Amino acid sequence: MTQTAEPGTPRRPSTGGSVVLSVDTMGGDRGPATVVAGVALSAEKNPDLRFILHGPEAELSKLVSRKRGLAERCEIRDAQSVVSMSDKPAQVIRSAQGTSMWSAIESVRNGEATVAVSCGNTGALMALSVIRLRKLPGVNRPAIACLWPSRNAQGFNVMLDCGADIRADAPDLLQYALMGASYAKNGLGVERPRVGLLNVGTEEHKGRAELKLAHDLISVASADGNFDYIGFVEGGDLPSDRVDVIVTDGFTGNVALKTGEGTAKLVGDFMRDAFANSIMSKFAALLALTSLKRLQKRIDPRRVNGGVFLGLNATVVKSHGSADATGVSAALKLAFQLAQSGFHDRLAARVAQAAAAAEDRTAALPGTEP
Amino acid sequence: MTQTAEPGTPRRPSTGGSVVLSVDTMGGDRGPATVVAGVALSAEKNPDLRFILHGPEAELSKLVSRKRGLAERCEIRDAQSVVSMSDKPAQVIRSAQGTSMWSAIESVRNGEATVAVSCGNTGALMALSVIRLRKLPGVNRPAIACLWPSRNAQGFNVMLDCGADIRADAPDLLQYALMGASYAKNGLGVERPRVGLLNVGTEEHKGRAELKLAHDLISVASADGNFDYIGFVEGGDLPSDRVDVIVTDGFTGNVALKTGEGTAKLVGDFMRDAFANSIMSKFAALLALTSLKRLQKRIDPRRVNGGVFLGLNATVVKSHGSADATGVSAALKLAFQLAQSGFHDRLAARVAQAAAAAEDRTAALPGTEP
Repeated sequence: MTQTAEPGTPRRPSTGGSVVLSVDTMGGDRGPATVVAGVALSAEKNPDLRFILHGPEAELSKLVSRKRGLAERCEIRDAQSVVSMSDKPAQVIRSAQGTSMWSAIESVRNGEATVAVSCGNTGALMALSVIRLRKLPGVNRPAIACLWPSRNAQGFNVMLDCGADIRADAPDLLQYALMGASYAKNGLGVERPRVGLLNVGTEEHKGRAELKLAHDLISVASADGNFDYIGFVEGGDLPSDRVDVIVTDGFTGNVALKTGEGTAKLVGDFMRDAFANSIMSKFAALLALTSLKRLQKRIDPRRVNGGVFLGLNATVVKSHGSADATGVSAALKLAFQLAQSGFHDRLAARVAQAAAAAEDRTAALPGTEP
Repeated sequence: MTQTAEPGTPRRPSTGGSVVLSVDTMGGDRGPATVVAGVALSAEKNPDLRFILHGPEAELSKLVSRKRGLAERCEIRDAQSVVSMSDKPAQVIRSAQGTSMWSAIESVRNGEATVAVSCGNTGALMALSVIRLRKLPGVNRPAIACLWPSRNAQGFNVMLDCGADIRADAPDLLQYALMGASYAKNGLGVERPRVGLLNVGTEEHKGRAELKLAHDLISVASADGNFDYIGFVEGGDLPSDRVDVIVTDGFTGNVALKTGEGTAKLVGDFMRDAFANSIMSKFAALLALTSLKRLQKRIDPRRVNGGVFLGLNATVVKSHGSADATGVSAALKLAFQLAQSGFHDRLAARVAQAAAAAEDRTAALPGTEP
């Protein structure tokens, strides 16, 4: 079981300055046709992108050949089995060899591609990623970072952990802060990210014990890092412009993420109801079509599709299981940006630097000198 | 310090079938004028309501006398000092005697009023309520229940705990389920509430250990109770129509509540931006005014103003600190409904019945007979 399932010595796509993404075409709710449609959209928009597609070869070949010019930019890796949404991570680890998800991760593991993208089962994808890619030295718990529509200039805030792990202690939260800051810088172009720690109030005496400890750790680390620590933030600050990166444990982050999505959807549904209510309001909606479409676009969850796995020896992007072609394309775009910015190496360097700085501080404490 | 600050033997307002609410007029962001305006709104709508107002007598007399017919329905209790938003609960406990908040709780404690309402500091209000009213026999942690706009016929779902305590173990979560079901029945008129436990997934193997245990406890209790237990729910289910009562710890609940409010506000702001964008869309907004107002009303946080403290020997309603007159009036309406339905006695009976049933089950276990 520890043997690597290397798919022979693959012919590498000629990369000449381009970025190669490894794409799991299976495991999403809409099947490989939707994923390939998303790949085609991204390929059209971005001539520097190349793809390795993992899934059933015959079907993928047919889908790819239907899109003009796509075949030259895609390499197909046959994988007949699939990790389903209901598979438990523990089962998946035992039986994932030969699945498209495993294969997609392998392409990143062996350096053929820079970032892996999958619409599949989140728990299984994280479990396989940890086992095959391994954790970055110095990282205890990897995290999933997601984007949150916000009032900031960059249009989004970063929140992590969104559900990689249901718990996090203070040193984990510190690492989330470092990794999140690095992501905001490289993924969103925020020069000096402001980091906040999610709590039930902004006063220092509030919250659980591990949050008070994390508060102190992040304060100290911000002196060495390229970020500002603004202290505790609340749920209402997730879309605010006073913070760029919100740090929390994966349980709270997951509930917050789904609550935000659910609330936005509720308001959207109520809005549709309101406009469908009378002939007058239907006419008004027609007049306001451009405005409503702009609004729709601003809160469209498909535009912010892509949870990024941080703290591993390569970057993995998790797309929504229900993503349509636009959603898949958004996840691929995010993967491209991260690949192109050299995000992974910068993140690794930052984590290593923080670990070294912490060691220096410990060594400098009175009484700890040899 | 254990001495009671009974304000003499108060002249009780003549109640003849009416409901008396005890109102703390201080401690909100907008001062007593706003609270008295809210009281006047409620008094106008509901002839069965009477009030005991707590705060600076001279100012309150002046405010009350300006509203026609209000003076006959209000009794004023002079309280010169005030609990501020920044006071820490531990400080407040030592020095709260003589504040309007303390006085408002006393009127409920000594039976003059049925429900107390305050816009003040939540932590202080909960701490004083626990100390002066004491916990209901059998309740370990009191909880704050809030209302969440939803797709259900009743228009709202109940979530608890919204932040009374930052932790809850399995037996606490069970009590939240019982108290929340009782609240949904008496406060919202839901005949047979459906209760769900908030988690990061709906599968039984997911989540923290205390959630799995709580899952089992609530399952068993639902057999005796007048509610259905639907198992785990996710953040996206908070506004959904598959559940009426969502149970969670106060840390998660508080983050979810503020996240939902923040998201709704963001979408609302984006919508305003969209309609302000062009002359055409401004005209459209004018045409759709009725529809937009209906939408506004449906998601107006002032309409759902009022966190209810559950698990004490009387009911306390916490209004938003920033509530305007409409918001205060909504909190008073909720307090009135709860008072009129005999909610408190029913809740106490249900908690006692559940405790007895649990004892019976333990006694019936093989090997536990005498």
